[in-house]
This record gives sequence, structure tokens and C-alpha cells, in this order.
Amino acid sequence: MSEPLEKLRAIVVCCCLLPLSANADEGMYPVSEIEQLNLPAKGLVMSPGDIFNPDQVCLIDGICKVNGCTGSFVSPNGLIITNHHCAYRAIQSASSTEHDYLANGFQAKTGAAEIPAKGYTVRITEAFSDVSDKVLSVVDDGMEATQRTKAIDQRRKELEKSAEQQNAGMRAEVAEMFAGKTYVLFLYTYITDVRLVFAPPASVGEFGGDTDNWEWPRHTGDFSFLRAYVAPDGSTANYSKENIPYQPKRFIQVDPNGVDEGDFVMLIGYPGRTARHKTASFLSYEQSVRLPFIVDLYDWQIQQMEAAGKDNRAVALKHTSRIKSLANVEKRSRGQLKGLRRAKIAAHRAAQEAKLQAYIDSDPDRKKQSGRLLADINQVYAEMGEAAPLELNLQNLISASRMMNLAFTMYDSSVERQKPDLQRESPYMDRNFELTKKRQLLTQQDLDPGTDKVLLSGMLDRLNAIPEAKQIDALRVAALTDELRRNYLDSMYRQSWLIDKAYVEKGFEKSPAELKELDDPFLNWAIELYPHYLELREKGKERNGRLDQLYGELVSVKQEFQNANFVPDANATLRLTFGRVKGYSPEDAVYKSPITSLQGVVDKTTGETPFITPQKILDMHAKKEFGRFKNEKLGDVPVAILYDTDTTGGNSGSPILNAEGELVGVNFDRAFEATINDFAWNASYSRSIGVDIRYVLWITGNVFGARELLNEMGVN
Amino acid sequence: MSEPLEKLRAIVVCCCLLPLSANADEGMYPVSEIEQLNLPAKGLVMSPGDIFNPDQVCLIDGICKVNGCTGSFVSPNGLIITNHHCAYRAIQSASSTEHDYLANGFQAKTGAAEIPAKGYTVRITEAFSDVSDKVLSVVDDGMEATQRTKAIDQRRKELEKSAEQQNAGMRAEVAEMFAGKTYVLFLYTYITDVRLVFAPPASVGEFGGDTDNWEWPRHTGDFSFLRAYVAPDGSTANYSKENIPYQPKRFIQVDPNGVDEGDFVMLIGYPGRTARHKTASFLSYEQSVRLPFIVDLYDWQIQQMEAAGKDNRAVALKHTSRIKSLANVEKRSRGQLKGLRRAKIAAHRAAQEAKLQAYIDSDPDRKKQSGRLLADINQVYAEMGEAAPLELNLQNLISASRMMNLAFTMYDSSVERQKPDLQRESPYMDRNFELTKKRQLLTQQDLDPGTDKVLLSGMLDRLNAIPEAKQIDALRVAALTDELRRNYLDSMYRQSWLIDKAYVEKGFEKSPAELKELDDPFLNWAIELYPHYLELREKGKERNGRLDQLYGELVSVKQEFQNANFVPDANATLRLTFGRVKGYSPEDAVYKSPITSLQGVVDKTTGETPFITPQKILDMHAKKEFGRFKNEKLGDVPVAILYDTDTTGGNSGSPILNAEGELVGVNFDRAFEATINDFAWNASYSRSIGVDIRYVLWITGNVFGARELLNEMGVN
Repeated sequence: MSEPLEKLRAIVVCCCLLPLSANADEGMYPVSEIEQLNLPAKGLVMSPGDIFNPDQVCLIDGICKVNGCTGSFVSPNGLIITNHHCAYRAIQSASSTEHDYLANGFQAKTGAAEIPAKGYTVRITEAFSDVSDKVLSVVDDGMEATQRTKAIDQRRKELEKSAEQQNAGMRAEVAEMFAGKTYVLFLYTYITDVRLVFAPPASVGEFGGDTDNWEWPRHTGDFSFLRAYVAPDGSTANYSKENIPYQPKRFIQVDPNGVDEGDFVMLIGYPGRTARHKTASFLSYEQSVRLPFIVDLYDWQIQQMEAAGKDNRAVALKHTSRIKSLANVEKRSRGQLKGLRRAKIAAHRAAQEAKLQAYIDSDPDRKKQSGRLLADINQVYAEMGEAAPLELNLQNLISASRMMNLAFTMYDSSVERQKPDLQRESPYMDRNFELTKKRQLLTQQDLDPGTDKVLLSGMLDRLNAIPEAKQIDALRVAALTDELRRNYLDSMYRQSWLIDKAYVEKGFEKSPAELKELDDPFLNWAIELYPHYLELREKGKERNGRLDQLYGELVSVKQEFQNANFVPDANATLRLTFGRVKGYSPEDAVYKSPITSLQGVVDKTTGETPFITPQKILDMHAKKEFGRFKNEKLGDVPVAILYDTDTTGGNSGSPILNAEGELVGVNFDRAFEATINDFAWNASYSRSIGVDIRYVLWITGNVFGARELLNEMGVN
Repeated sequence: MSEPLEKLRAIVVCCCLLPLSANADEGMYPVSEIEQLNLPAKGLVMSPGDIFNPDQVCLIDGICKVNGCTGSFVSPNGLIITNHHCAYRAIQSASSTEHDYLANGFQAKTGAAEIPAKGYTVRITEAFSDVSDKVLSVVDDGMEATQRTKAIDQRRKELEKSAEQQNAGMRAEVAEMFAGKTYVLFLYTYITDVRLVFAPPASVGEFGGDTDNWEWPRHTGDFSFLRAYVAPDGSTANYSKENIPYQPKRFIQVDPNGVDEGDFVMLIGYPGRTARHKTASFLSYEQSVRLPFIVDLYDWQIQQMEAAGKDNRAVALKHTSRIKSLANVEKRSRGQLKGLRRAKIAAHRAAQEAKLQAYIDSDPDRKKQSGRLLADINQVYAEMGEAAPLELNLQNLISASRMMNLAFTMYDSSVERQKPDLQRESPYMDRNFELTKKRQLLTQQDLDPGTDKVLLSGMLDRLNAIPEAKQIDALRVAALTDELRRNYLDSMYRQSWLIDKAYVEKGFEKSPAELKELDDPFLNWAIELYPHYLELREKGKERNGRLDQLYGELVSVKQEFQNANFVPDANATLRLTFGRVKGYSPEDAVYKSPITSLQGVVDKTTGETPFITPQKILDMHAKKEFGRFKNEKLGDVPVAILYDTDTTGGNSGSPILNAEGELVGVNFDRAFEATINDFAWNASYSRSIGVDIRYVLWITGNVFGARELLNEMGVN
């Protein structure tokens, strides 16, 4: 690796030299801040400098980002452990009714038997650097909001492109740490040949399914093994037989002894998004507008897909990944709604804002400068709430129906790709376009026209109930009678060539004029609707421009008021969080302890999905064949553990590390009460859930006999 | 009280002198067995002889039966504490949309303001005596089964009548302790003037509703106060202004300090029915036939009634008690199904029976005598399972529809009452007829013809799906087309005079011929169907005759095999059970502690039914106005407690007594996992639920200001 990158890592992320806010409720620390945390006093045994050190190989070099999840290298040969649900798309797309790896699990006996995980990429954080000044140099206070957003976007893209040109083969991303205020350039090693090595059957990897999802106690073996490959010369390369396993600079040592209640643990990973610095008006928008919409819409979509797959395993397999991901968001949203209501979080934040407002108003200059800050932010969310019925339904029209999504993305792509690279929407930039296409083709592969038609028709029903949508001539089909509309949609699906994968591949090479010439019913409709979506996009940029500037100022005045620094909201960049293995009381007279056991798997097993357990596990449990993975206190194999670290989506697959930095589990979920982590953290009920390394190793080595993987990880 | 009665109490209930079975799973002890239990070693401080003593006034004189529930006298003036759900029917029938005592609670400021609890009776066990020989003297082995049942029934009635003649004003009941084997005559003081004194609002008394029913942790103030009245001379009398409060021989002293985790507690009460001596084939019948039928049917009935009352509070009030009672059974049945499946209780019992069969078969004489015992019992349940679709639906046709119930009961009554008193079905004997009529009139009062028609029509749909039912000409209306049937039913409800209460009262005085002459559509239908119901009744007697004899022999051979005596199944006679205040673990990694707090009420309060809490309680909680009822450990008012005694339905309202025999709570429910208590008891999850006396007193005295009741109970 070249010298300049190493240096970059020395630059801290937080924006000023004040102490970090002492609130225990913000615990997703940028790794550059680790020294400030005094971790040895909290229980860490290894040196904090060995976790992150800009000048040498350290623990974070063993952590990677696997699509939207986190993974850990657990061998010198690029073996990655992450969640079953993170590898799910790979397992699903390798599965067929003949080779049902979802149902039966997958085990590559040799390297050659490992299956390409299509659409998967792996990133490793190599360097980062504060580029706030460079980004903000292109804006001034007089700019219009939309113009401001576009200027910042383009500047970020320029910085990314330039960094990638200086560091061939790497990915660069400018991340917004504090909206409108702090930006950091991250450089990543970027691997595009990723393969599936081992996955337990869904009966283990998804045990409990949606019933247990977001719940504790948990009994899910939510883990899988992947492997990163590079070209023989060590450079990034797409899949090829000639590729060789990637050699990480560092891998995480597995500790087969696991942890006990009360032990120190830390997680490193890529948490996606939190909203702890957002206003009460944002929370109210979520609580009364967006989350209820999502719960209602996704619930309905899931029902349609489940009905379609009920008696047809091939169709069911097509929908399984999408159902899982919708169900995940639907239940999380329900948890968040319940939490927002019960904990009165919006009211609590409004009270904090009232104090801040009083502080602002107490000084005439400050009042003049910032007196309308909160009111102006609230105004944006008020506008969003008002526009929500039309906007949310329009957005979901082109996501609920895969045909509409394909047609829209294809046309959007052809329009955008006529622009200079840096002015395009991000998915259509040269550096992203291949992946964008690949994912569209994977999506197309799962298309079931019958289900798609039902979802499209349902979205039209929803739009037809919205007065503003009735004004949109391109949506006239929504107003047809049932029979006419059915006939019309039937003929669209019959006539469209987007049903055919080969045509779709070619379509992404065409110009807007060529796409028009094709006279495809879905493309024609997408073209007719296109101006309305451009309008939504511009509107979004305009609101973001306003919010970025306002939030940038808000953070400044809050820092002044509280005389403290803040940890930035999660933004899919590398963070560390620490805590202890710890139970909790979700309600009066109920206590949940933090380690579950194989006995619990047996107790929950009904023989019906999602509570099926392979007979071999039941037999081995009955005979107490626990090998070295038995915990003496439980008299059983530990299955899952609970701890009070601060996580959110994106932390899926994060290593659970003990005080010595060894792997003792893999993070995969949060407790139901902790779904509101995204909005606020609470010591009493913010708990994350991981699969215990002992269960991982027992399942992999003892139950399914993949001893070679245990050997590769140095476990005997 | 006359001398002979006192003597009777000295006679023990269990059938032989063997020690009681040491199985901890049978803990509903007849009070005559208390001396055997060595309660002082288990934690009892008071003398066991003060609980039950045939020769003097003792604790059980303070316990009473309130309809199907239990109550305790808690003052010298006949004040009774029982559950809110036990007084529910009284509160409901006193309520109207103007005086909604259900919603607002009820408090009688003076004795004159107490409201008659229509249809309520109170019994106090005064004496009992083994009458097995007298009962079984009328049967011999050669008798046919139906004849056997009728002979035993008539003999029991004779003994009851004779005992009542010897003890004017008392009730006598011959209870079957072991089917076909042991019978005990109980004598009761019988009070028919019962009045409502105090009820909290439903938001307290039913807090959590069906959601929390059968669940722990619990936050329900499920208590009410009634008062028993007698004639000025102390004799039993129907309601009259001249009546005076009943002076119990003994009342239960309230201990306002309550109990703590781990403390000894005992319950005395009238548990209704258990099936611990029944065979695996009975459990299978319950599991695969009867319970699923009940869950499905009641669930549907509840939905219909809820829909009918949705926008009409007057209609809703009519249905509320019935919905509550159906929902209670429906959820209990679901719990039992889940428990039967999970704990594999039928398989476990089958394994025990296999051992018993091997024991029987090991001796040629024994084999000859009892070798077919189990097979013969199984045969009866196999027949019941086969006949179930027709029989269960026919039975529910005349219970789901109140009009059908009225018509059938009226005609049945007129037929039966032509027979000599002792040969009548029990509800129509002179000693029961008044109460039978009163309850029918109360039922008629809650009739909503619209809902009734929906329920009747739904039952016809069910019957129309059963081939055997299609053979019954009297059910021909079931096969009509929707429209024809609707018209037919509409005209029935329009024409029937059973809609009118005054006519119903008169109807019960008429002969079968007079009822025929009325030409009422419902009566005509009941008369046409009557032979089919007589057939069901005879069939039932025939099966009971076989089962009684077989079970009698089964208990004998089991006693011989295990060399132990058994505690008889619950049969609504007085029992004692003891245990400790104790939490439990319903599943891996979950522990539920045994005392809930007012904070939990506040946490559960959503402001929507069934989680509404009166503002005054929320305010008093916020201000920590707990008075003397604060528990220091909780820093709060305790609300409900959990303990491992052995209870079932009928134990509702049972006093929870501390080691000194003082009242520390009122039993009202079981945990979900304990619904299978009816079939088997388990130390790990059989837990009962009661309202803590501190919550009772805080709500009554501190929140609703009924200090006079606290004074009456000696609490200052």
C-alpha cells in the first residue's frame, strides 16, 4: 500500500477538540476516536492502539464490509464470517429446486466447489481523511437549496474520482459525518470476486424466521462463510478460475471458548443510518407518516408474495429473499412505532429543543443568527408530511413492481449516461454502473410476472385513492374499471420483452431514443412517467439542500450550548461500539438473561416452519454430543448472546470481540425494544443479539462435519 | 347448627388408608386430608387443626362458594371478597348506558345502596360424609350402562333430598370423588340474597382484558366486594328489604402487609374440574377433537358479537359478559392445546398406561379381571371422537343461539316437570327450578335478536356441512339457499313471542301440550328437534355408565400397582392447595418474577382498551401517593402475585392465605403454560395468579375512597 494512505488514517473524524459528549446514548464511535474512550478502564485487555493504528497493521484490517453488512476475515486465506442473512442473496441465487442450498445448506468440500456470490463485493477500510473544507468550498450562503445539493454532490464525486485515480483499484467514498458540516473521504480495498463457502440449512440459519426476528431470546444460527478472491497478482478482479484467495493484512483470531455473562465485548462494523441528531419534527414525521405507511404497504406486499408461492416452490424461492427483507423492515418499523409511542421520544426531544431555543433566544445576536433554525427544519418535515401520500406511493410504484423498476431504471440510466460522468446520479457513474446492471439482472431473474402484476395493480389502487395522483395523466390506467385494467395489464405483461433476461442486458446499452423506438409497454409507461420522477428527485435535492445547511448550523449551536462534541450519526462507515454481555428487563416482572442454549432450540422446535430443526441436531442434543463447545454452567451448547452495545442495520455480521480482540460471536439483530436505537439509545433496553461462536463451530464442525474450516480458523 | 352435621365433617374423603400419592403433581387436597400433609414442615405457622376441625369453628367456615367461583368472608357482617370477573354478571346486569357500573365502577355508600346480584348464590360447606356404599348399593355388574347411570343419579338425588329434609334451608350435593367408586355428601348453608357492594371500573378490574388473560406478568385489579344477606331470623331468604347481613361463623382476617417472594401461601376454594386420572385416549380426544372445535367455534362467535356491538354500546353491554366468558375458554383451550402438544402429555400418559397394562397382564387372574379395562375406556373415547362433529354442533346449536336455548329449555322443562321430582334432570327438580328459570330470564334480558340470528345461521352452516346432520329432517332449514334461509329466519324472529320477557316467564309454567298450542316458531322447532336431543342425552348416560364403572376399576388397579392413594380430581368441592410465592422460567433465557408493580400498570397503559387506566391512578402514581400499601423493595404498590399452588377454574376468587391464615390476595387466573393444569401439574410452570391485597386496599380505600370497607375489614 502506498505511503500517503497510511498517513490519512491519522486524521480524526470528529469536528473539533471538545470532549466527546458524555451521554452514554451515543456509542457508535469512529475508530479514530478510540484513544479518547479509555477502553482499558472499561475492560479491554488488548491495547487500544492495536485496534486502530494509522501507522501499522491492526485489528480493523481484519474487518470488511460485505455489501450492506459487515464481515470478519477469520483466516489468512480470505475466509470471511458474516451472517446467514447477509449471504442469503448468494445462497438463494445459487439455489434451484434441484439444488436447494437454502433448505439443505451448502458446504464446499474444496476451493473449486465454492460458488460465486453474484452481486457481492467486499471492502476493507484502508484510509480516511477530513475533506470538509474541500467539499464546502463550493457552496455559499446565497445558493439556492437544490443548487447547493448538486454542488456538494458533484464535489464529493470529484474528490472520490480523484482519489481513485491516485489509488488504482481502490474505492473512494466521501461520507457525510455531520450534514452540511463535516465530510470524510474513505478509501477502500475493493474485492469483486466473492464466493460462498459454507451455509447452514435455513432451518438453522433462519430458525425462528419472522416470528423470532427482532426478538430475544433467540435461537438462530445466523452465520455463513464466504471467501474473498483476487487476481494472482493480488489486484482486484472479477470472478475468474485463475483468481486466488485474498490474503488480508490481518485476520481475526477465533476464540472457541466464547464469553460469559458480564464479560466485556466490542463490535466493529459498518452501521448504516441513525437519526439521533434529527429534530422532534423528523421523529413525528416518521411516527405519524412514513413508518405507518411502510408497515401497511410491506405487510400487504408480503401477503401477496406468500400467497403466490404457497403451492409452488419455484415461485416461492423467487420471492423468499424479498419477503425476508420486507418482513425485516416491516417488523422493525412496528417495533419503532411502538417504541416511539411508548417512550415518547419525540416529546422528549421536543423538550430538549425547547431548552435549546430558549438558549438561542437568550442572546440577541444568537437569536438573529439561529432563532428560526428549528422552525425552518420543522417546515421541511411539514412539507414532506403533506406530500407523503403521493410521493411515497409514486416511489413504491417503481419498487413494488419489478417490471416498473426495470423499465424505470433502464430509461433513467440511458438518460443519465448521456451526461458527463460526474454529473450523473451515482448508480449510473462509470464506477458503479456494472454493479447497478448486475443487481438489476439478479432482480430480473427473480421476476414472477403473476405476482408482479398483482403488486402493480395494488399500487395503482393506492394511487387511485389520492386526489393529486388523479391529476397525473400518465396514471390514467389506475382509474380504469377492474376488468378493463386487468385486460390492459395482461396485455402489457404479454407484450413486454423485459420479461426476457437477454433483452434486458442489451437494453442497458441503449440510448433514450433507441429505448423509445422499442415501443415496449413498460418502457413507454416509464418514459411517460419520467418527468414526474425527475420532479420528485429535484424536490428531494431541494429539501436536502435546506436540511443540510440547517442541520449544519444546528449542530454548531448545540455544541456551543452543551459545550460538548458529538459522535456523528451512523453513515455506513467504520465504527466501534463496546459494552458487556448483559440481560435486560423488557417489562415489569420479566427478566431476560443473555445466553440461550441448544435446549431452547429443542424446546422451540415444532416441526413446522420456522421452527424445524434437523434431526441430527435433535439426536446429538439428546446424546449430549457437545464436544468442546459445551458451556459448563449451561451444561449445553450456547446458541446466542445478548449485549448492550450500540448497533443498527449494517452491523449485521459484525464480529463480537472479547477483551483480547478475539472473535466470540457474530452480531445479527437487536431486541424488539432496541429497534428504536435508530432514534435514541437507552441503557435499559438497547440490546444487540449475536450468534455464539460455540454454536457456529459446533454446527459447522460437529454437526455438518466441515472440520477443514475449523482447522483453517485454527480451532482444533 | 344441629349436632349430626358437625359429626359428619370427621369422616375422611379419600377412599382407603394408604398414604397419599407422593407425586407433587396432585395438590388439590380435600380439607379432610390436611392433617396428613404436615403443613407446619412446609411453612404453615397456624395450627392445621384451625384450618379444618370437625368439632369447632375453623378457617374453612370463612370460605364460601359464589356461583362457580370462590369467595371469602372478610368481615363479621357478611362482606365477601371475590374476583371482579366473578361478580361480572352482577355488575353487568345492574348496568345500563345511564349507569354504566362496568365502565365506571360501583360503590355503595350505604347498605341500602347495595344492589341485588341477580342469579347469585352463596354456599358455605358445613358438613360432608362418605356415602359411596349407599350410592353403589343400587348398581350391580349386570346392569346396562344407561340404566346404571340413571340408578346412580336417582340414588344421589334421593340422598340429597333426604339430607335437605333433615336440615331445613340447607343444600345437599352428592359429589363423585372417584368415578364409579367414591361419593361424598356435602351439606351447604345456602344464601340466595347476595348484593353488590363495591366494584372497581373495568379499566382496573379487567385491565389487560383478553390480551393479558391467562398471562403473567399481570396488572389486573380483579376483585369485587359482595355481601350475603339472610332473613332477620338468620334463615335463608330471597331478596327482601327486611333481610339483614349474614353473620358468618368465622371471617378471614385481612393482612394489609401482603407477602413477599418465597413466602408460604395456601388457597382454599372450589376448583371445578380436572382430568388427571383420565386416560391418554381422553387426552387425545381433547387434543384432536374437542379443544380445536371449541377454539374455532368460540373464536367465530366472539367475532360476531364484537361486530354487532361495535357501534352500539347498548348491544355491546348485552354481549360483554358472554364474550368475556367465551374468550376466556377459547384462550385457555389454545393454551391447553399448545401445552398438550409441547409437553407430549398424552404420550407420557400412554407410557404410564403401558406399564400399568404390563402389570395387569403379569398375573393371569388380574389379566382376566382387568386386562381389557384400558381398551374398553379407549373404545368409549373413539366412539365420542367419531360422533363429535354431529354431537358437538347439535349441542352448540342450542347454546350459541339464545332463542334456541330458551325454546329448548322451556320445552325440556315442561316435559321433565311432568315426571316425579327425583326422576327429572337436575335443573328441573323443585330444588333447582327457581334458579334455572332466573338464569334463563337473565339470559333472555341480554338477547339481541340481530346477533342471535347471525349465530343461529352460522350454526346451521356448520351442521349443513355434516352428512349425518343432513339426514335429520328437523334440520332441513340448514340446506336452504342463503336467501330462502334468511327469509325463513327473519320471519321466525318476527313471529316468536320468546322475544318478550313476560311471555317467557309464563312459558315456564306451561305443559308440553300448552307449549305446542302456542305455535311459536322456535318452540315448534325445539319440539321437532327434541327426540334428537333426548337421543344425545341417553347416549351420554350410556357412555358415562360405561366410563364410571371402568374408571372405578382403573383407580383400584392403579392403587394396587402403585401402592398409594390418590387425590381425587377436582369436582367443585372444597379443596386446599399450598405453595410459595415463586417466579418461573416459561422458556430458555426468560425468567418471570412473582410480584408486579403499579409502575407496570403505567407502562402497559396505552389509553386504548384494554389498557386504559383512570387518570387518578396515573396521578397518584406520579405523586407516589401509595399510603401504607407501598412495598419498600419495589418502592411501589404491588399489584399481582404469582405462586406455585395447584388450581383450576372454580378457584377464581379463592383467598390467598399467608402462613397464619390471613388474607394476602385473591386468586384469579393461571399463567398460560399452567392452562394444562387441568390435565397435568408441573413444578416448573404450574403457576397461579392473584391480585395482591395491597392493590385491593389501595384501589378501594385510597383511590376510590371507600374507607368504610377498609374499616369494616379492620384495616386502618
